[in-house]
Formats: sequence, structure tokens, C-alpha cells
Amino acid sequence: MKYDLYNDNLIEVCKTASIHELYELSQQIRDFLVDKVSKTGGHIASNLGIVELSIALMRVFDSPRDKIIYDVGHQSYVHKILTGRAKGFDNLRQYKGMSGFPKSKESEHDHYETGHSSTSVSAAYGMAVARDLQGDNYQVTAVIGDGSFTSGIVYEALNNIGANKTNINIILNDNGMSIAHNVGALNKYLNNIRASKKYDDAKSSVKSALDNVPVIGSTLARGIRGSKEYIKHSVLGEEGNLIESLGIKYYGPVDGYDIREMEKIIRSASEFEGPTLIHVITTKGKGYEWAEKYPRKFHGIGSFDSVTGETLSKGGVSYSKVFGDTLTALASKDEKVVAVVAAMGTATGLLPFYEAHEDRFFDVGIAEEHAVVFAAGLAKAGYKPFVAIYSSFLQRAYDFIIEDVALQGLHVVFCIDRAGLVGADGATHHGAFDLSYMSMIPGMTVLAPSDGYQLEEMLEFANKMDGPVAIRYPRGSCESEHLRLARFKGANNRISEGSDVEILAVGAMLDEAISAANILKDKGISAGVTNIAVVKPMDTSLGDLDTKLVVTLEDNALLGGFGECFTMHYKDAAFDILSIGLPDNFVEHGDIPSLRKECGIDAESVVDKIMERLQN
Amino acid sequence: MKYDLYNDNLIEVCKTASIHELYELSQQIRDFLVDKVSKTGGHIASNLGIVELSIALMRVFDSPRDKIIYDVGHQSYVHKILTGRAKGFDNLRQYKGMSGFPKSKESEHDHYETGHSSTSVSAAYGMAVARDLQGDNYQVTAVIGDGSFTSGIVYEALNNIGANKTNINIILNDNGMSIAHNVGALNKYLNNIRASKKYDDAKSSVKSALDNVPVIGSTLARGIRGSKEYIKHSVLGEEGNLIESLGIKYYGPVDGYDIREMEKIIRSASEFEGPTLIHVITTKGKGYEWAEKYPRKFHGIGSFDSVTGETLSKGGVSYSKVFGDTLTALASKDEKVVAVVAAMGTATGLLPFYEAHEDRFFDVGIAEEHAVVFAAGLAKAGYKPFVAIYSSFLQRAYDFIIEDVALQGLHVVFCIDRAGLVGADGATHHGAFDLSYMSMIPGMTVLAPSDGYQLEEMLEFANKMDGPVAIRYPRGSCESEHLRLARFKGANNRISEGSDVEILAVGAMLDEAISAANILKDKGISAGVTNIAVVKPMDTSLGDLDTKLVVTLEDNALLGGFGECFTMHYKDAAFDILSIGLPDNFVEHGDIPSLRKECGIDAESVVDKIMERLQN
Repeated sequence: MKYDLYNDNLIEVCKTASIHELYELSQQIRDFLVDKVSKTGGHIASNLGIVELSIALMRVFDSPRDKIIYDVGHQSYVHKILTGRAKGFDNLRQYKGMSGFPKSKESEHDHYETGHSSTSVSAAYGMAVARDLQGDNYQVTAVIGDGSFTSGIVYEALNNIGANKTNINIILNDNGMSIAHNVGALNKYLNNIRASKKYDDAKSSVKSALDNVPVIGSTLARGIRGSKEYIKHSVLGEEGNLIESLGIKYYGPVDGYDIREMEKIIRSASEFEGPTLIHVITTKGKGYEWAEKYPRKFHGIGSFDSVTGETLSKGGVSYSKVFGDTLTALASKDEKVVAVVAAMGTATGLLPFYEAHEDRFFDVGIAEEHAVVFAAGLAKAGYKPFVAIYSSFLQRAYDFIIEDVALQGLHVVFCIDRAGLVGADGATHHGAFDLSYMSMIPGMTVLAPSDGYQLEEMLEFANKMDGPVAIRYPRGSCESEHLRLARFKGANNRISEGSDVEILAVGAMLDEAISAANILKDKGISAGVTNIAVVKPMDTSLGDLDTKLVVTLEDNALLGGFGECFTMHYKDAAFDILSIGLPDNFVEHGDIPSLRKECGIDAESVVDKIMERLQN
Repeated sequence: MKYDLYNDNLIEVCKTASIHELYELSQQIRDFLVDKVSKTGGHIASNLGIVELSIALMRVFDSPRDKIIYDVGHQSYVHKILTGRAKGFDNLRQYKGMSGFPKSKESEHDHYETGHSSTSVSAAYGMAVARDLQGDNYQVTAVIGDGSFTSGIVYEALNNIGANKTNINIILNDNGMSIAHNVGALNKYLNNIRASKKYDDAKSSVKSALDNVPVIGSTLARGIRGSKEYIKHSVLGEEGNLIESLGIKYYGPVDGYDIREMEKIIRSASEFEGPTLIHVITTKGKGYEWAEKYPRKFHGIGSFDSVTGETLSKGGVSYSKVFGDTLTALASKDEKVVAVVAAMGTATGLLPFYEAHEDRFFDVGIAEEHAVVFAAGLAKAGYKPFVAIYSSFLQRAYDFIIEDVALQGLHVVFCIDRAGLVGADGATHHGAFDLSYMSMIPGMTVLAPSDGYQLEEMLEFANKMDGPVAIRYPRGSCESEHLRLARFKGANNRISEGSDVEILAVGAMLDEAISAANILKDKGISAGVTNIAVVKPMDTSLGDLDTKLVVTLEDNALLGGFGECFTMHYKDAAFDILSIGLPDNFVEHGDIPSLRKECGIDAESVVDKIMERLQN
């Protein structure tokens, strides 16, 4: 091995090594990534795609003085290796281990924390404006994928940036995909550029043009700038106007595996006075055959066999799968059922729906706001949209859920996957707030299944309802045969009665509640469990529970959650109340059992809290 | 008067009258609007601008079969008159009177309810897709201003629409303003089109071209379509590509006061197979000299003298004014203070800030998401952004407040105007949820002033804090001299002690609380009042209140609000608790006293609820 990824100063290597050596470094990093992530799991495909780009950025820019912001954050693995964090990959995304996203506390080279997509341009602009106010002159660069580019906030940022003259560099990492295949007009537009024969012509012509200019400094920049004008016009014709008509100077397209060319063009763009966009063409999964072949599978993946590309951990049937299969069947029976997703068709389980009912499946791209209002339009015109969006991503559509769906009383069903703790993705992705932000909305019904069967029944039930409905369920397996719940008919059901304690377990917390009740029984305490499937409206029968202590248990923030609402309703009831939920702080990444324990919502913590309360 | 606006079938008039007669109708409608809105107040300027456009739409389309969606909704006054609701203008925006926004329950011609900006394109697309699924063939048209066009959701919608071939018409009502002067790259782009000499040339050339084609039916459409191609290329050159590169056919620009030309072009666009954008040039306030001269003042206005243009109701000093003046002074002392607004510089009171510190004032357009992440970037780079956004509009940035600001623990101060009930704007604009959606966010400090002095002190206090802070205050006067609060030092203060009852009044509800306490005293009940200025973190001293009943009072939804959180904290305290806040339903428009009474949060209702509780 030429480089010691653990101990060499790779930033220095990026700056001083020859181009040939940088390709050797690239190969080493690729091998390292496949080796490490095959063991821990993680976001591999997008990182394999931008090894050379990440190196080129380190070569051109002077981090941490210059600021580089990786959009979505899961494409920061190479950056982490280059900035001295290779060791962290042994416990990547594990409890107390290195995060899969940029974290300021990990490194001074993580200039801004990202997790949800499409924020990098706005954040970079804020930092660039601050720099100018301070009279400083460092560079600020956002690295953003074409998938992230479909989200509205990017356009808001471009509109703002383009009207001003602030120096800022936007690297459009265009791999022709977001998490799934990219959709939308912008993607077609980019495809046209990529597919253009002129792209190849320009690649060779710029090379010959650039071979004759000196290698360092502003003379080069001027030389490139001239030749770039040529590239832009010859390659893009009128098409470059999409960006340029917003007042942003367009550079590219550039081959994302030609380090020399990228270096020159990024340097040139960075020396231009004003906002620039550098269009870099990459391939998701580059250099690892399985990831290139199945970029969707290798977007975010658990551990896998690096030779065969087979995933190792299978897990049980997921809530997502039950959701997808059930909705597909529902749509076969009811022609008014339509599905709306925001770039997450496969991940939300809806591939079967797409295959069976393509005309009623709508993937709008990473565009949660539009997804919800589009669904409102469909509902207003007589259809029944099931909008499948992850809990933390749906936060983006909060205003539209209130104003467009709830205020008009429209029958839209929000299918909220990844509710509660999500595990390895951590703080940015936990669905910690959905019970709070949905329950406060007038007219909203909020449901939470405890297992796959209940989810199935809930979807059928929700389809027959009127008005807005939210069904929230967690990531992972929904197999809990032992629960043997009664058929869901729109009400909660008391599974067992406890004269000392009754645990009201919201949705998938039922497992922990049953375990807690069993432990309590061993301690001589009569503990019952009630399955809270209906979070809102509040169950009016719960005030009659004949027990000493009612414990509410949820994997949602205590603030605004079920327990708080329950307490306001039943504070004057005969029983005492203890509410257990997620604490009022952000929860980091890790395996679910560790996180539940940390948050005090696992069975043993629940037992401890109950014992403490009973003893007082 | 040629037409009886109250009783004539104006839809029929639009369809059958001569163009000359339609100009007479336009003049009558303008006079009517000025007369009526001068008495009730309302959104006058934007409606004066689109009288002819609204008529042209009624002429071309067959409402209610065809669907017309007016973006933001406050530009639907002319549409209301045309659809038989002239009588409603006598009690426009008044309690139980006609809404200032489209409402399905008012008319079958209000096809989709709007209130917040920029949703019309997404909603129209949903309805158009539903139409195609049903095999129907009605027209769907969104009418959207250039200000609304800066919001990201519009771009998400265009990106989605442009990739498909669904028939949908987007009317870009371009008056070169949003609520204030428009900002951003898109506006510059549109200005270039408007300013182009070629626009005038094309206007005359298309007129002569069109004068020779028959007036009705598809022959016309074909004729126009040919000539339109000509217009597009001669007027826009490469500039039309901003829209066309997204796959949407561009028509225009068209003079918004030439009914004949608008009719022809809208008809032509509607017959085109696929998505179209029709660029209509209008003038805000058209035809009423004061509104043309002061379009910002006449955007949304109280009652005014129609002859002099002077506003009649003055009111006291507003919270907005105190906010603006205080922040301006703060910025003079502290060079790190910057202000960020989303198209609401004047309305949030920041005109003085802009005048004194233009380099630290940032209006990003109607782009709440970008505003918040931009502010996060500024904060990350060492500045102290004060983000001034109305309570209900800030809902749009919810995800970014969590992920970008709070998760990174950034010191961004959210200055949330129009919190609580806002009055005449009604359901879409009440700030009913901010205490809930801000309080659930980890690390957020939530403050609420009771009067102008306290707001002043809070801003100074917040500037010295660290981490995210929200300060929420209502629309209207902040003059409450009688309160005589102690200086704000980050804590709540007990104004008076009651051995029977203590009312905890959040922010501006202090007035009602003091009135209620006085009434209670007359009834022989010892009632005290505590000023809750700090909503979060929860005041740990409140558990020691020495009284029988604690009443929480807030103009926020009970769900997730202060009262609910207080109850969870203090349910085991010695006192009983009664929580009073906004009910779990949407509240319509009207004057604040009527709405408070309806919601049961006015002094008398508070007294009644307390008496009832004490008697049980």
C-alpha cells in the first residue's frame, strides 16, 4: 500500500502528490470503503462515486479555512478519511461510534452538519455572506447531488444567490440518480447535457486547450476561464441558461474521474468573482461492480459480502414491506387509491405498488412539500392519496399538512415510516416528533400499529375513513406473533389488566411494555398492558382504567406526545400517571436496544421508573 | 351603472358581452372594490391589478367544471364578485362575514382553498392528474403571482409537471412585486423580459397577426399557436428557456389589461396538449391612484379614505414596530446582529433596520426554508441572525429549525410575529401552533412578551443568550401601560397573588388574565396573576404556587401548548390545574374580541370556566 490511510496526513498528500499518485490514493480509499462498510453497513454507493471529487476539493481548497459542505451528509465518508478519521470506520454508525454524517465535534473539517437533503446551498450562502461581512476571503463550497437538487429550498437559495454577487461555489455532483432513479424535468435536462455528443467533443477540446496553459496560479485561472466560456457554449448551447438565467455562472460538465480537469475547473470557478455552479458527472457506486450494478441497493445498506455483494443480515419482514403489499392489494380493490412518494418508492415498500399500478404511483422526487399539496389536489378531485414519507422528512411538509390537507378536511392518509428511533442514521433521522406535530393538527386522526397485522388492518380502516389520517410505524421488523392482538376496529385494546399498574404502550412500544409487565409480575406487581393504536382522538374510555398507576410509553418526544396529552385529559382520574418517552434532547446514532436504554424507554428502564414511582 | 354587480349573472356576462362592455364591467368592479374595501379593509392592491385577468379567465373557462385556483387566495376578490358574492363585501373579513380567501363552503367556484402562498401549482397538478385518471377533460388553471413564484414548492411542482405531459395552465401574474418589492434572480429575469423593447414590438406585431384570424374555436387556437411561437422567440430569445428547459410551454408576455389578447392566448394555451405557463404583465393597484402609488401600503390595509388614500384606523404602537426599532438599536451596538426576513421587511417592522444597516438586512423573498438555513449558515460563521417570520408562515421552516438550527445548537433568534389569533385573515393565518411546534424542539428557548417594553427587554436578553431562541408576539398594539411589569431578566414574575386562583398568562394574554382576576375579585374570589414570559424551559418555581387552582391561559392550541406541558410537570402539585387555550379546531376570521370569546379565552369565558371548576 502506498499510503497509510490511518496515519498519513492525507490533506497534505492531496495537495502535494502527483495526479498519478492521487489515482493510487483513490483506489486505496475505494478498497478501504468496500472493506469497512461491508462490515458495518452504511451509505456506500454515493461515496464510491465521489472519491476523486473529494480529493480534488482537498487539493484546491485549504480546509478548515476554506469551508466545504457535503449535502445530505452521507456522502462525506471520503472526506472523513481524508481528514484523519479512517479509524472511525471500524465502528461507523454504531452506538458511541463515528457518525455517518458530518459532525462538528468529530472534526474541524466538518464545517456544517447535514443529514436531510438540500440544505448545503443555503447554508453555504449564509457562511459566504458572513465571510464578506467580516471582510474575510475564504472559499465556501457546497457539494450537492442531482437528487437533492429537486428540493425547493435549493431553488430558493439559487434565486437568492443569483441576485447577488457573493462568491460561492456549488458543485453539482450529477450521478443521474437520487436515492432511487431521479425523476423530474431537471433530471431530463441534465440527461440531455450528459447524453449530448458535444459533451465528449468538449472534453477533448478542453483538454487540448488546457494542456498549453501554465499549471499554477491566476494566469491559469484566466486561461481556463476563457476556455470554459468556450466549453459552456459548445456543450450546452442554450441549455446552460437554466442556471445562468438565474445569474449563476455555469462550468462544465466535467468528468468526475479526471482529477486534473476537476482541479483546473474548480480552481478557475473559485477565482471567479460571484456565484458559480460546477457540473461534475459521476457514477454512483463507481469502481465496485455490485454497487455500480445495483446503486439503489447499495445506497444505504447493512453489512454485506464484499465479494458477492450479498447482504448478510436479513432481519424479519419489515413494516415497510407490509405497508407496500397491503396498499398494493387495497389499490387493486379500490381504484381511488393512489400512492405518492418523495424519492423513496422502494425504501417505503412501494415497488409492488409501482409494478401493479404504475398509473396511480407518483414519485415527485425529493420534494415533500409538493408531495403533500399534490396529494391534497388529488384528494380534492376525488382520489384517496396515501402519502408515504419518513417521519423526519415529513417535517418539511408540516405547514402544508395543516393548511392544505387538514384545513380543507381532505382524506389524505400519511404513511409515516421510520417513526421513533431509527438506529444507525442517528439524530437527523429519528422520527422523534411525529406524534407531537401530527396530533396538534385539528381533525387529524393519528394511528400507530404494534405489528404488521395491525398495520394491515389500519390501512384498510384508514381507507374507509374520511378526513386526514396519519399512520406511524418504525423501521425494521414487524414480526411480533406473540402479541395476538384483537382485530383493529378503530379502538385501543386492553391486552391484560393490572390492578397495580397499567402500561399504555403506543404502537410498536408494545413489545417493551409486555416485557416490562412480565418483569413486574415476577416482582409481585400486578401489571397490565393496553395497546394504544389510536393516539388521536384521545380514547375517552381510558379514564375508567381500574388501576393505581397508569404508565404511558412512547418512542416520541414527551413534549407534545401521547403521554402529555393523556395527562392533561386524565390528571383528575383516580389513578396516578407516569409518562415515559424520548427526552428533550437530540439522540445520537446506534443500535435500537442501546438507544432505547439510553433514553430510558426499554423494558428494564420502564420497570425501574415504575418501581421508583410505586415506592414513593 | 351598466351592470348590477349584486344580481346580474356575471359569469354569463363575461362569456357573452363585447370586449368594450367588459371594460365597462372592469371599471365598475374597480370602483366597487375601492368603495367596499375602503370601509372594511382588506387586500386591495393585488385585486385591482387582476380585474381584467379574472374576467378573461371567466370568459375562456367554464367554471365550476373548469377549475381555477387563485394562489395565496387574497387575490380572489374579483373572482368572488364574478361568482355572485358582491353582497359579501359589506362584511368582508368580519366575524361570521365573507372570508378574504377562497372557501369551498362559500361557492362551488372556489375549487381549492388557499391562504399561504405558492401552493396553487402543486394543487392544480394534483387535480389535473386526478382528472386524467378519471378520464375527464376539464381545464385546471393556477393563477400565481411573481412573488409567490420565489417559493421552493413552485419549483418542485414545475420540476414534477415538466417531466410529464399533463394538461395544466399556469398563469404567472407578474406585477413585479410580491408583498413588498420582489427580490431575487427570478425577478431580475422577469424584469429583463418586461423591460425588453422587444416586448412592445411583439405586442403590436401579434396584434396585427391576430386581427386576421377568426374569433372562436380551434381554428383560432391553431392560428394563435403559430403566432405565439413567433412571440416567444422574438420577445424572449433565449430567456424563455428558464421555463421551457423544465419542459413547460411558455406563452407571453401578455398585457394584463388587454382582455382580447389575454382571451386569445389563454384559450390557445388551454388547447395545447401539455403544461403551459402564460406570463401576464399587470400593475399592482391598477386604476386606483393611491394603490398604484403605494402598492405596499395597499397590499393589505385597514379601512381608508377612498378619496385621499389615508388610513382611518391608527391603533397603538404595534409589537412589530417595537421589534423593528429595538433590533435596529441593537444592531447599532452589536455588529454581529443581522436580520433575515422572507418578503416581509416592512410588515415585520424592519424598515428602520434596512435603512440603518442595509448590509446586515437580508430579504430572501417568500422562501422561509431558505431563510432559516441561510440564517443557520450565518450563525455558524459567527453572526447573530434574528429571523423575523410570521407564526403561521414559519411552519414552512419547521424541519430546518430542528435539523439546521437546533441540532447544531446555533444561536438564531426567531422573532415570531402574528402569534396567536390574527383577526381578519382567519384560519390560514392564525398563529395557533407556534408554542407547540417550537417547545417540542430540544434546546429551544421560547419566550412571549406581554407588552412592548417586555419585547424590547427580551430582544436584548436573547441577543446575549446562546443557542436557539423563539420570541413570539401578536399582531397589533403592544401598549399596555397598566401592566407595569418588572424588568425582564429571563424569568416569569408573579404580578399578584391569589389564595384561591392563580392565572398563569402566557405573553399577551396577560390583559385578559388581569381583567379576569378583577372580575373574580368582585365575586369574592382571591385571584392572582403571573406573567409567563418564559414558556420553555418550564419554570421550576411554579410548583410552589400557594393557591388552590392554577389556570394556564394561552392563545395557542391546547395540544402541545404551555398548559399541557405545565400539567405534565405539575400534576402532582398541591393545586388543581385548569388549562385554557385554543380549541382543537380551526378558527375562522373576525375581530379579536369575538374570536377570543368564541374560543373561550377572553376574560369573561375564563371567569366562567374558573367558577365552574371551583364549584365542582
